[in-house]
Amino acid sequence: MNIGILGTGGVAQTLAAHLAAGGHSIVLGTRDVATTQARAGTDGQPFAAWLAAQPGVRLDTLAGAAAHGSVLLNATAGHASLASLAAAGEAHLNGKILLDIANPLDFSHGMPPSLFVANTDSLAEQIQRQFPALKVVKTLNTLTAALMVNPRLLAEGDHHLFLSGNDAAAKATVRGYLQAWFGWQHIIDLGDITTARGTEMLLPVWIRLWGALQTPMFNFKIVQN
Amino acid sequence: MNIGILGTGGVAQTLAAHLAAGGHSIVLGTRDVATTQARAGTDGQPFAAWLAAQPGVRLDTLAGAAAHGSVLLNATAGHASLASLAAAGEAHLNGKILLDIANPLDFSHGMPPSLFVANTDSLAEQIQRQFPALKVVKTLNTLTAALMVNPRLLAEGDHHLFLSGNDAAAKATVRGYLQAWFGWQHIIDLGDITTARGTEMLLPVWIRLWGALQTPMFNFKIVQN
Repeated sequence: MNIGILGTGGVAQTLAAHLAAGGHSIVLGTRDVATTQARAGTDGQPFAAWLAAQPGVRLDTLAGAAAHGSVLLNATAGHASLASLAAAGEAHLNGKILLDIANPLDFSHGMPPSLFVANTDSLAEQIQRQFPALKVVKTLNTLTAALMVNPRLLAEGDHHLFLSGNDAAAKATVRGYLQAWFGWQHIIDLGDITTARGTEMLLPVWIRLWGALQTPMFNFKIVQN
Repeated sequence: MNIGILGTGGVAQTLAAHLAAGGHSIVLGTRDVATTQARAGTDGQPFAAWLAAQPGVRLDTLAGAAAHGSVLLNATAGHASLASLAAAGEAHLNGKILLDIANPLDFSHGMPPSLFVANTDSLAEQIQRQFPALKVVKTLNTLTAALMVNPRLLAEGDHHLFLSGNDAAAKATVRGYLQAWFGWQHIIDLGDITTARGTEMLLPVWIRLWGALQTPMFNFKIVQN
């Protein structure tokens, strides 16, 4: 299917490469195509070189990516999410499902980051309020990108993802995508979009766990009888 | 050993009953002994009836409980924790270890609760700042009381507790208590007391999971290879 991914960082690249390998048609959206093309990657590999090795992935503007996707993924930095969606254009968003993967991390006071919205609101709610005809489903924001696209890397996939969103049909669709695209078997629907406060507020302990465990290759499992 | 528990609610009662059954000498501390004695429990059983059935548990003032304990447990409501510790008296706190189990839940805006401190500070840090000679170790605040004292009720104990605190020796001592008192096998030291922001901020997702799963009998397992 046609998938639009907003963002061009490590998470966006991991998602794009995996989905393109699965036969999907991917457009990554960025504010400035030329600047992104010329950018050096965090791993030293230029973005253009990475892109050239991905036949199923195209780079375009945010509006171009949003227009392309019958489903959209928000893989922008949290502080840029609202502006990126505005640049994508409401006409390209309305009626579509957005998997919101972004986290409202605030690095302005140093490390570890805090959250710029939390507790009584969330980034997912801000997005949903600003784009009421977009079907926002918060998910995939609670683990590292390599595990988003391949949960079987840990314990044969025996750990959890969460869903938050106001539209039950959209959540059912997203659950199907997560299973089909990545093999997710264990997905808990937390409720409406306000429950994204809970999963966004997992980031502070996630960051400290990364420090304590010296690896981001872990995930939460909700243990029940 | 002599253990002082600040608080007389459900968590305090569960901890007290379990520890007394294990041969420890427990004093529960409350602001007003007569009022607590006369109180109806949340389960309909009067507090006095519960207490009479616990030979190893005594009820006293907050200062009395703190004086009794060679180690202290904070099982007060989060909004009452600082005042309760002040009432306990610094002389009875200084140099001791406090297992801080309280969460900064704010019910003033209805359900589900938000947190009255989060993100750039935490209740554990507030306590540590106000009582610098108390060795605050945040732990046990991320699961329901029945599981605190009996982790084997779920998956033979294969799930996690967290520790946050500034004093490495105090954390090692607490790790030993958690193993000896309750049988905890899987405990992750997140770092200094500021990491309590992470575990206190688990409460919003914990509360939504309780709603989604229709039971509080679950816990987080950190899955790694």
